[in-house]
Amino acid sequence: MEGKLLLQQYQKRVEQQLETVLQKTCDAERVRLAMNYSLFNGGKRVRPVLVYMANQLLNGQLAQADSAACAIECIHSYSLVHDDLPAMDDDELRRGKPTCHIAFDEATAILAGDGLQPLAFELLATDNGLSAEIRLQMVSVIARDSGYLGMVGGQSIDLSNEGQQISTEQLELMHRHKTGALICASIEMGALSSNHASKADLHALKSYANAIGLAFQVKDDILDIEGSTETLGKPQGSDLQHEKSTYPALLGMEGAKQKLALLNEQAHASIADFGDAAQPLHWLADYIVERQY
Amino acid sequence: MEGKLLLQQYQKRVEQQLETVLQKTCDAERVRLAMNYSLFNGGKRVRPVLVYMANQLLNGQLAQADSAACAIECIHSYSLVHDDLPAMDDDELRRGKPTCHIAFDEATAILAGDGLQPLAFELLATDNGLSAEIRLQMVSVIARDSGYLGMVGGQSIDLSNEGQQISTEQLELMHRHKTGALICASIEMGALSSNHASKADLHALKSYANAIGLAFQVKDDILDIEGSTETLGKPQGSDLQHEKSTYPALLGMEGAKQKLALLNEQAHASIADFGDAAQPLHWLADYIVERQY
Repeated sequence: MEGKLLLQQYQKRVEQQLETVLQKTCDAERVRLAMNYSLFNGGKRVRPVLVYMANQLLNGQLAQADSAACAIECIHSYSLVHDDLPAMDDDELRRGKPTCHIAFDEATAILAGDGLQPLAFELLATDNGLSAEIRLQMVSVIARDSGYLGMVGGQSIDLSNEGQQISTEQLELMHRHKTGALICASIEMGALSSNHASKADLHALKSYANAIGLAFQVKDDILDIEGSTETLGKPQGSDLQHEKSTYPALLGMEGAKQKLALLNEQAHASIADFGDAAQPLHWLADYIVERQY
Repeated sequence: MEGKLLLQQYQKRVEQQLETVLQKTCDAERVRLAMNYSLFNGGKRVRPVLVYMANQLLNGQLAQADSAACAIECIHSYSLVHDDLPAMDDDELRRGKPTCHIAFDEATAILAGDGLQPLAFELLATDNGLSAEIRLQMVSVIARDSGYLGMVGGQSIDLSNEGQQISTEQLELMHRHKTGALICASIEMGALSSNHASKADLHALKSYANAIGLAFQVKDDILDIEGSTETLGKPQGSDLQHEKSTYPALLGMEGAKQKLALLNEQAHASIADFGDAAQPLHWLADYIVERQY
């Protein structure tokens, strides 16, 4: 199947799964609605798509990847909600829609993020379609990669970097934590869900994940300068406004584009041994590099 | 052993366990330090103590309750950090020490809370001393009870209640979510850690947990009026200042004290069938009711 069709199929699949997650009314409707709002903010669902692709590459069953796909999106969504808060990036728009603390209020946005986290772990822990061992491995992976040694650590490094003159190495360290860790977790959980992941498979897939994770960020930095507010769904130039270090700022626009091309090559090379079966992952690497929003 | 000595022994045990959890320096030192600061804020460790007591009541081994004790305290600590934020209760002191966002900064406090959550799940998922099934049950319990159907939901209900005229029933609903759910999770995880928990055991222990959880809150409300800022470690009268509904406000001080006594009776009655083995839990119920801070 063509990459784009597959992407749309997986996007649709995870959306349908996510729709069932917060369906029932409860005693705390406001935070439930805010959580749901945050889960359906027009995201590209790249992480769930990676989960499904890794699952399929290793001949898994898609149904066994559903909880991992939903869990990773819960974590990603919570991180965006908290990242947008006034004390963090103070963004009022995300993908053209009011951010959670604008649509609701700041306290509710904090709580919505706090509620999306345990939901991720609950989805994994209660997925009876997976063995207990696999579920525990998934919980461990997502916990480690979203925590202070992963994503949360990256956010903290990012804050420390603001207004500082930093090196390309420091910028890379930050991104490997802030976005790379969760991209890596997506691929790893997808592989685990297949029940057929060898150490060599995991090694190759993580290498691919590292490359596309960083490529994603370099591309984001480039789009922040070359994209338009309309297509981005957020104010163009917001990195500059926040005095954030970016690849174009450190390497120049040409250097950033070369870096992006290099990372794309690394991504393709990492999964060469999988042959044709890895076609969707090859397509996705190119999609990340070529996207306009 | 006398209740107080046992309490101190369990407090010491969980402190020693928690000290090892965030020991290693990492790339994101600021958030690690903020997480550690939040874990060691002079808390009474009531929840871990409950974990250990339930474990011992059912003839478990203490070592099998360590990860649950630490995990529940990570969740409790994160909830306090976020609860103290300017957009939430806006408290600058907790137990006589600057709250996390005062000692560090607001963004770091948000991230410290966000980092303590997955740490809890990681500790449970990677505890090789427990069977995979027990670990998964613990992850499910803590995820459910800390999420939008439990603690986070309670925080949200609490916010909605502010400045509103609410009934005793509504106040109780809020507390059962906000603090009761995690107290209940503590007892349940302690019971699970013993590997000997029958359905009847869990039922009795949850009933006990519900009673002491609510008693804890009624007592807090009373102390907010009758306690002093010095012994409380937080400004006396802060509930009134935040226009929060309290038991003394709804029932009068005498009514609140009667409610407290009734809950204490319920707690004792719930665990009567355990006989002498439940002595520590009986002691703890009284301790909650009689504490002065």
